[in-house]
Order: sequence, then C-alpha cells, then structure tokens
Amino acid sequence: MPSGEFDFIRWVRDRTAADPRVLVGPGDDCAVLTPTRRPTFVTTDVLTDGVDFRLAEVGGWAVGRKAMAANVSDIAAMAGSPTAAVVGVVLPNAGNSRQLAEGLYAGLREVADAFDFPIVGGDTNTWSDGLVVSVTLLGEATGRGPVTRGGAKPGDWVFVTGPCGGSILGRHLSPTPRVREALALHVTVELHAMIDVSDGLAADLSHILEESRCGAVVLADAVPVHPDAITLSQRTGKRPLEHALGDGEDFELVFTVSASDGERLLRERPVPGLAKIGECVESGLWLDEGGARRPLAPTGWVHPV
Amino acid sequence: MPSGEFDFIRWVRDRTAADPRVLVGPGDDCAVLTPTRRPTFVTTDVLTDGVDFRLAEVGGWAVGRKAMAANVSDIAAMAGSPTAAVVGVVLPNAGNSRQLAEGLYAGLREVADAFDFPIVGGDTNTWSDGLVVSVTLLGEATGRGPVTRGGAKPGDWVFVTGPCGGSILGRHLSPTPRVREALALHVTVELHAMIDVSDGLAADLSHILEESRCGAVVLADAVPVHPDAITLSQRTGKRPLEHALGDGEDFELVFTVSASDGERLLRERPVPGLAKIGECVESGLWLDEGGARRPLAPTGWVHPV
Repeated sequence: MPSGEFDFIRWVRDRTAADPRVLVGPGDDCAVLTPTRRPTFVTTDVLTDGVDFRLAEVGGWAVGRKAMAANVSDIAAMAGSPTAAVVGVVLPNAGNSRQLAEGLYAGLREVADAFDFPIVGGDTNTWSDGLVVSVTLLGEATGRGPVTRGGAKPGDWVFVTGPCGGSILGRHLSPTPRVREALALHVTVELHAMIDVSDGLAADLSHILEESRCGAVVLADAVPVHPDAITLSQRTGKRPLEHALGDGEDFELVFTVSASDGERLLRERPVPGLAKIGECVESGLWLDEGGARRPLAPTGWVHPV
Repeated sequence: MPSGEFDFIRWVRDRTAADPRVLVGPGDDCAVLTPTRRPTFVTTDVLTDGVDFRLAEVGGWAVGRKAMAANVSDIAAMAGSPTAAVVGVVLPNAGNSRQLAEGLYAGLREVADAFDFPIVGGDTNTWSDGLVVSVTLLGEATGRGPVTRGGAKPGDWVFVTGPCGGSILGRHLSPTPRVREALALHVTVELHAMIDVSDGLAADLSHILEESRCGAVVLADAVPVHPDAITLSQRTGKRPLEHALGDGEDFELVFTVSASDGERLLRERPVPGLAKIGECVESGLWLDEGGARRPLAPTGWVHPV
C-alpha cells in the first residue's frame, strides 16, 4: 500500500470491526471466523470492466451490487446461506478512486446487509488498467446438506423460480439472489439437483443434465418469459422464447424434484413465481412445442422444424 | 464462459476432484468443505501485472507461486495452517492464454502441494487489459488459537525468523512462507503478537506497535541483513541496514514474546535463523546504533544523527 493511497480494505474492515461473528480486529493478516458445525461453501467470482459491466455507464454502486449478488446466487444454488465475504479490488488510477471505492462498497454492503453477513476483509491495488472486482463468499449448508447439480433422474419434474430473458436491459445489474426461495424449497421437498441461471436457462439446465447424466424435455408454452425478453425481441428479431431460454444472468433457480414432490410444489406453492417447465428423460435436451419435439441447443437456439 | 475459451477453473477443479477434503464434484456452483472444529482464517490477495510482478519478465509459473505464497504467509502470520484455496484469474486475451493459465496453475499448485492443501475452485475471465490473479485462502487455527498483531507489551523481546532486505532482486517471487516456523514457535512459547514482512521490517513492526499500542527499540547491529540487501546497496547507495529495515516482501515473521520466553527461544532455538532484533517500550519506534537512540521511520529511513 503506497502511502497516501486510500486503504479501501482497512476502511471496509473498520466498518465490520464490531461484528460479533468476526473474532479479531481489522488490523490483522486474516479475518478469523467462528468454527462451523456444517459443511462450508466457498465460491468466487471475478468481474471485469467491459466484460461483466461498463463502469462508465453504471458506476461503482451497481458493480458492487452485481459482484456480491452473483456470489450469493451461487450459495443459493446449493441451498445454503452466505456467512462471510472477502473482496479483492483493483482500482484504475484514472479518475477518483476514493469515490469509486466508496460507491463499490455501498453496493457490496447493500447485498451483504440484505442477506445479513459481514464483509470481513480483502485486498486492494491500483493500476493503469480497468476495474476488477473479485468477491469470495463463504456459506453454510442447512441440516439437510448441500444440493448439487448431479442428482436429477429421468421422470423428475423441472422447475424454475421465475421468468427469464432480456436481463441485459438492466436486470443483470441488480439481481435478487434466491436464497430464501432455495431454503423454503429445501425444507418442503427433496431437491434432486439445482443451479442458478447465470449462463442461460437452457445452458444451466444442460449443466444439470451433464452432471446428472440424464436428459430433459422443456415445454415451450410453460417457460415463463420475462417482459424484458419481449422488449428485447422487438429489437433483435429473435422470439421472446429464445431470449428466455438463451439469455444469461437471470439468477433464478432451476431445479428438479420427483413427480410427487413436483405435484406438492404446484399444490402448496411455497415460493411465488414457481413454474414447472418440463421433465427429465433418459438423454438429450429437447423443446416440445405443440407436441413436436426438437433438439434444444444449450445456447437457447431452437432447431427449426 | 464463451464457448471455445479455455475453462481454466473447470480444469483446476477436475484436478482436485478426487481430494477427500472436497465434498462435491468440480461441476458445482461452490466448493463444499468439511465442517471445522477451530476458528477459520480467511485471507485474500490480488496481484496485478506491472504492480506485483512483470509477466513478460517472469512468466506465469512465478506469478502463480507468488500469489499463493503471499496468502500462505498471511495464514502463517497468525500461526495457522492453510486448508483450501480458491483462485480468480483475469487473463489478457493477447498471447497464448491457455499456456499462461497452465503455467499459473503449476505455480499455484506447487505451493499448495508444499503445504498440503487443495485448490477447490475459482473463476476466470478474459479481457484486453493485463493479468490479474486473486487468491483467497482459508486456514485453521491450532488448539492454541490465533496470534494477532495486538498483544505486544513493553518489555517484550522482538524477533525475526530470518534475514531481510533486497528481495526485489528475485526473492520476492519465490518466498517460503513460514508456516512450519510459526507452528513450532506457537507450541514452544506464548506468541504475544506476530506479522509477516510484506511491507518491510520497520513498517510491519510498526503495524504490531499500532495494534498493540506500545513502542519498540530495534538494535541496528542485531538486524539480520540478507546478502541481497548488500548487493542492492551497492546499486542504490543506501546502507544495507536501510534495505533490511525498509524493503518489503521478505515474508519472514516478526513477533514478540515475554523476556523469559525470549531467553528460552535463544536457548532452545526451535527455528533456525531466529534473531532477537530489539525490545518493546512504552511508545515510539527507535533504532539503537552504538548506544545512540534515533527515530526509525516505518519506511526504514533512519533519522540522521
């Protein structure tokens, strides 16, 4: 830390020094956390200017929010609760780096507060290139254990927690990670496999199928299409359905359960917005439209009739 | 992950899939670790091209080694053992990114293997700017608990685990984190305060003094000066002592113990290379040279007589 430079991380840790979940003060080499009774989740995401966001257009606050929310969503996808975050930041030395750092922190902290976990430390650096934000998040499994991508079975029903598509119009910057939804589902039914929609609904479902070694048929009429997907389709000429299946960063959860648990979910609706979008089969990824079954690419591209 | 791009993190996790300390497979949203019985350390470092290394001069392997070793050193500084790492990498899209990623991984893995912990996951990105490597490392305290920077007392003796200065001549790229030394000291004596030398011997000692709210006198003749500090002094015109006190990234440990524990360390020498360099006093940071006491700046600059 060259003298005179804003010590972002010290400033961050000073703000969590009074948190009883953090055992030692902000001046130490590591944060120290209390022992865990349950399996610990670790996830990390690196976001870069020009790839995951455009700093000049959206500002530090939105970048901080997105960086933290993307990690929280990964914990949600395994049915866990976030417990503590560390943040690595590389600030561009062009511009007001103190103002940028404070905006970033406000965004990071807003998501941390919403899910009630501390930011316990981090590292900062300054250079002549673009902004990089790296968040590592720890989490804890519930007593029912982690939900992986690998437990889907033929005959399972496939669900999604909300409408997809067109997040690039702005929703990708302020996702609501589905932590509460995942926990509510986890106590209600036996979740066989789960993932959050970061690459795209079809792509992320195909990640489940790959790990579970089975296939799925998606019902075109059952896919909840976000209004943004319709707006975007007027610009791109693609069908709204293709945006719902192919666009990324919706941060809804896709999961599979047994048919009987699926019926229970439709009856009890423990989570608003839940939609059954298909069923698992032996192999392949298919779209059923009006009874005709065609291959569905993980990119969301629908094979023409 | 755009298709066709080398999935560095998937490749990394495939390599640790068989590790029994990692509970779920490489295809999931988070790594899952077994519960801990003791406090968990979390530390993170972000290294950037042109600031922490020059990629064109040193290559990916050295960068990976340094990034991992710097984090291991932070765990050592609190007398803990590293348990699991995650890695975030932003690769420049100029050049052979696959080759760079494999070199990086070899360096990261070499240090992880030396200290027997798995690399459990991470994230990767590609852009038109420079290389960024972000490592987050988890660790575990021993039964004797964490050693912080805040426990030094007037009358304590100040020790360092080895010679300092001139690391910029190359040693800064391949530090040997003092994990085993810290654990050996921790079982032998009561460590009051400890830190690793990353900013510089005087600067890091001053971090201890700040957290402990006391001072220290360093004995000029007792400071172990690395041969690199002598070589460098011939180039810079500074005294070798000033390089030993002021240069950073030696990754030796500086710590304080009671006088009786200090005598025991000098008698039993549980760690080779150990040197008593001074004693704690009520306030200030001082250099004693031939009986004359002068202010010592945290930068290592010695106040003229």
